[in-house]
Amino acid sequence: MNKPSIPKGTRDFGHEETSRRNYIFNTIQSVFRLYGFQQIETPAMEQMSTLMGKYGEEGDKLLFRIQNSGEKAGEMPEKGLRYDLTVPFARYIVMHRQELTFPFKRFQIQPVWRADRPQKGRYREFYQCDADVIGTQSLVSESELIEIVKEVYRRLGLRVVMKINNRKILAGIAEYIGAPDKMTDITVAIDKLDKTGLEKVNEELMERGLSAESVARLQPILALSGTNEEKLQTIENLTRESETGKKGVEEIRTVFGLYNTTTREADNDSFSVELDLTLARGLNYYTGAIFEVKAKDVQIGSITGGGRYDNLTGIFGLPDVSGVGISFGADRIYDCLSTLDLFPSESAVQTQLLFAAMGEDEMRRALSWANKLRNAGNRVEVYPDLAKMKKQLGYADANHIPYAAIIGSDEMTSQTVTLKNMVTGEQRAMSYDELATFIKKNE
Amino acid sequence: MNKPSIPKGTRDFGHEETSRRNYIFNTIQSVFRLYGFQQIETPAMEQMSTLMGKYGEEGDKLLFRIQNSGEKAGEMPEKGLRYDLTVPFARYIVMHRQELTFPFKRFQIQPVWRADRPQKGRYREFYQCDADVIGTQSLVSESELIEIVKEVYRRLGLRVVMKINNRKILAGIAEYIGAPDKMTDITVAIDKLDKTGLEKVNEELMERGLSAESVARLQPILALSGTNEEKLQTIENLTRESETGKKGVEEIRTVFGLYNTTTREADNDSFSVELDLTLARGLNYYTGAIFEVKAKDVQIGSITGGGRYDNLTGIFGLPDVSGVGISFGADRIYDCLSTLDLFPSESAVQTQLLFAAMGEDEMRRALSWANKLRNAGNRVEVYPDLAKMKKQLGYADANHIPYAAIIGSDEMTSQTVTLKNMVTGEQRAMSYDELATFIKKNE
Repeated sequence: MNKPSIPKGTRDFGHEETSRRNYIFNTIQSVFRLYGFQQIETPAMEQMSTLMGKYGEEGDKLLFRIQNSGEKAGEMPEKGLRYDLTVPFARYIVMHRQELTFPFKRFQIQPVWRADRPQKGRYREFYQCDADVIGTQSLVSESELIEIVKEVYRRLGLRVVMKINNRKILAGIAEYIGAPDKMTDITVAIDKLDKTGLEKVNEELMERGLSAESVARLQPILALSGTNEEKLQTIENLTRESETGKKGVEEIRTVFGLYNTTTREADNDSFSVELDLTLARGLNYYTGAIFEVKAKDVQIGSITGGGRYDNLTGIFGLPDVSGVGISFGADRIYDCLSTLDLFPSESAVQTQLLFAAMGEDEMRRALSWANKLRNAGNRVEVYPDLAKMKKQLGYADANHIPYAAIIGSDEMTSQTVTLKNMVTGEQRAMSYDELATFIKKNE
Repeated sequence: MNKPSIPKGTRDFGHEETSRRNYIFNTIQSVFRLYGFQQIETPAMEQMSTLMGKYGEEGDKLLFRIQNSGEKAGEMPEKGLRYDLTVPFARYIVMHRQELTFPFKRFQIQPVWRADRPQKGRYREFYQCDADVIGTQSLVSESELIEIVKEVYRRLGLRVVMKINNRKILAGIAEYIGAPDKMTDITVAIDKLDKTGLEKVNEELMERGLSAESVARLQPILALSGTNEEKLQTIENLTRESETGKKGVEEIRTVFGLYNTTTREADNDSFSVELDLTLARGLNYYTGAIFEVKAKDVQIGSITGGGRYDNLTGIFGLPDVSGVGISFGADRIYDCLSTLDLFPSESAVQTQLLFAAMGEDEMRRALSWANKLRNAGNRVEVYPDLAKMKKQLGYADANHIPYAAIIGSDEMTSQTVTLKNMVTGEQRAMSYDELATFIKKNE
């Protein structure tokens, strides 16, 4: 028998990791609920026809296909594991549109699967935490998503920058430099600015067919700096001839305005919102705002992203449904909190008390007292075997159980337990009532 | 474009269903934690070598296999979706045994997948909620699992019978009737007693190769009745020649004794434990106690099951690890609670208040007040569009939001909102402070 293993890119989560992951999910979920988002769940497997062609050619290759064991090997499998939560959500809206009231605000926290090459921080099974508002073009939704991001990271104690862009601004710029059909090429190049530097980006733009003049006109955009408002003014001046560009500037101004009115406080060291034109993610389907969040104190990719899409459900035959959404990457957030040691110590739910019985009568009393304490809401264990004291206390130590209630023949006679503090080693005798009060107090 | 659909046997869960499912998961999980079980999670996909051959020939056919899109169609897929939580748990123990302290008490609440023919109440994706104690043969663990079952169903308000059997008793009976090698045949036949009746069962036993004498000796067992103790005495008398049988009777007596000592109360109308020899589930791997729970007031199969297995991890090269576990079937429990209307009304987390703004200034005030209320922990929405009042209030109605705070030009002047009770239709003007106090009080 070979040693068992798990598929590459997947992970087991022990008690502590699961508690910490739940802490992240619960934090995100509580904030979603503050804003009225409703939780839904969709199946892990979708029809292949639902998934194929939605993530580009590269994405199609990363889909996991599912086959019944009964099916013949060569037969085309018709099901696949979901690749994200967005396409299943679009499918959900189309299938359930008669039951839904729009605007529809939903959140969803479930795993997704991608046959990516596994590497540090990239897994084949990982969780997404998505919130989307569907059926309204209101920029109030964008503003609320910014607030949600701010509140989630405030609660998690993580300092972040939220970057915002708008596809319409990018389109306006493409028009301004005389290359309206080259928006994607421009943004792909812009996206590399951080990594490869200005010179290489300019070279790449030429290779992608932009004229020297277009590249020249683009330079002020690539060099953009200052406050959000200073940047917006520069862009506004440059793109004044483009209706789309003007609309983009106006949208971002409105969102900033709503956000500032609502929160009534300046950005601070822990959270800031920055206009960033190099942000060009998801251009295949974002049509307005584009969001991305980066941790300030950890070198890691984007930990949250999203944007507005005007035709999400069009692929399933329901056109003209606008939506805007945000997706938190729980695994990367986990890595950040872990690196910075930001998990609260109480994120793991521990047993409060272990009964250690030295004989059969003692065991019966331990079980009875344990049951009474549990009825009062305490988390209590009874060591199930009549093992040596050392072994029983070792179990308490290994499981971080703070107190052990020892019952031997003396304690049977005096109707007490000897309560041992597993950290300090202190011991004292306690009656049931004293024990119940003590455990309640030390919860 | 065809109308989108989901794979047969799978389901979407809307807001209300998700809330109700979470209510079940949270109830089960809280009770598991009271007894010190620690949560772990394993990946949805396992190596096919981990899964194959663990569920019998029939089970192998029900495995879903997973293929990367990149892999060639005819290539043997090496991964599969987990079929239950037990085999992945056994694999987990073997892989992580160096990090674990035994006895190890874990719980796990995750979906499993089976390519079963879908039918009412049987799905291809469904959740299991498992708790197991590994690394001890103590019958205290059996007793605790009974208590856990009792407490979970007490909290859910569902009246149940917990049936208990012991494989050793079945083995003793097989010896007594002179057919020690026919235990599986006997139990399969006994299992059908309820469905096909005594006559058919006796016929089937003969067909399976039991002599007329063996079948005759089995009759008192098939006719067993009375209290648990009366049944145990009958069995004890019949199987006195069998060491295994005697051990089985002793084990069940001990478990009943521990359970009765612990709970210090007789079984009642809501919960009872019954010795039931026709209970023969999972004999392929159970070696001691066997559990099954049935709802008293709903006609549905087993809603919880489990038992002791003495060699779970042996299949992965780690012999002699005894364990006992229980598995709650969340989907059937859902159906029971739903049929009996037992979900608490507050199981769905709803928005408490909707702001309905009549203009742009009003919207800005609504956002600002909403944000302050959220900072105080209230779940508040702002209708994102400047739609007609009727539409905005219709949204509150459809989403069961109990109060709407309307802001028009009058309310702007007086620095108030008009708070409307969406059920009674009552309205009254409120300042921010009044509103904050009111919402807090009506949480």
